[in-house]
Amino acid sequence: PAVKVAILTVSDTVATGAGPDRRLRHIMRLSGGAQVVFTAVVPDDVLKIKDVIMKWSDEDKVDLIITLGGTGFTPRDVTPEATKEVIEKETPGLLYVMMRESLKVTPFAMLSRSAAGIRGSTLVCLDFVFDKKIS
Amino acid sequence: PAVKVAILTVSDTVATGAGPDRRLRHIMRLSGGAQVVFTAVVPDDVLKIKDVIMKWSDEDKVDLIITLGGTGFTPRDVTPEATKEVIEKETPGLLYVMMRESLKVTPFAMLSRSAAGIRGSTLVCLDFVFDKKIS
Amino acid sequence: PAVKVAILTVSDTVATGAGPDRRLRHIMRLSGGAQVVFTAVVPDDVLKIKDVIMKWSDEDKVDLIITLGGTGFTPRDVTPEATKEVIEKETPGLLYVMMRESLKVTPFAMLSRSAAGIRGSTLVCLDFVFDKKIS
Ligand code: NA
Repeated sequence: PAVKVAILTVSDTVATGAGPDRRLRHIMRLSGGAQVVFTAVVPDDVLKIKDVIMKWSDEDKVDLIITLGGTGFTPRDVTPEATKEVIEKETPGLLYVMMRESLKVTPFAMLSRSAAGIRGSTLVCLDFVFDKKIS
Repeated sequence: PAVKVAILTVSDTVATGAGPDRRLRHIMRLSGGAQVVFTAVVPDDVLKIKDVIMKWSDEDKVDLIITLGGTGFTPRDVTPEATKEVIEKETPGLLYVMMRESLKVTPFAMLSRSAAGIRGSTLVCLDFVFDKKIS
Repeated sequence: PAVKVAILTVSDTVATGAGPDRRLRHIMRLSGGAQVVFTAVVPDDVLKIKDVIMKWSDEDKVDLIITLGGTGFTPRDVTPEATKEVIEKETPGLLYVMMRESLKVTPFAMLSRSAAGIRGSTLVCLDFVFDKKIS
């Protein structure tokens, strides 16, 4: 069976309808054979981010959750912190490769706060699809 | 004096006698000048892993503990979690180099969950000797 | 306005006056356009390190704090542990690039215990200016 993927956009702008979800459109073009079974949008809010990840992992048993946004250095950026609270196991090898590949696209990847890990049978990855036009 | 090394195999299969300890044999061939003072086998069990590491560090004062196995993505793989509970200081530089070198051997190193750190005067490293034949 | 930088030397030797602050001199030569608004010296003591970082971040609102020293593998080296206790968000991308660049200077960077993160609006970075003459 195809890998079940769920994609969570974390963005005040998108959540309030003030802007389009360009990151989601971008990743959907790249998703290839994977079956995107859920998408959702939440504001930059730790509890709301955690709720969606826990539901998709614990109830819906998706294989992979990708989050988009909220990884910057400002006080509003809390996606890594929310993710770390719900993952049970860290995956430093994935982080390493995500960082190495992102830095090939742009040195600004240095300023992204990635995270990746496992909850139950779900792999949770922060976005690592860097593209100067959408970042 | 030679560096005192202790090697802990974490594997249900080896612990129950259902399979040979191929990782241990492989690392013993590579150990060169180091003096391997202890080896042990435990199942994939957080408490048992922690007990051996603490004993080798606190009582036997070995210089280096290498663990083999239990670093995958399945629910049984708990070696990094057990190790993180007993190390007192993280060593991210070692992790970085272990990951970089492992990825030169196989891209599957991306899926390994490494960890490394210091307890007292003992350096604890998860296995990073990737070999397609034994992984 | 110029980036406000504060530099904390962590060293028993320098704190007791038993030796010169060679790391500080070295980094001041490299600091270029940045405005170094504070420097201080503390011994290898977790509470004293934390106190200075918290004051510079919370009261003085500096943009960047760089710590020098205390990142080795000995029991006295506690700068990463002190830093991790006061940072609110980790910045793994910076760590990755610091490590990659440091390893180009010397393989001994592998034995350095880096850390980097954000507290309020302050970025806190451990030293990553490797120089064989001063390390
Ligand atoms: Na690299």
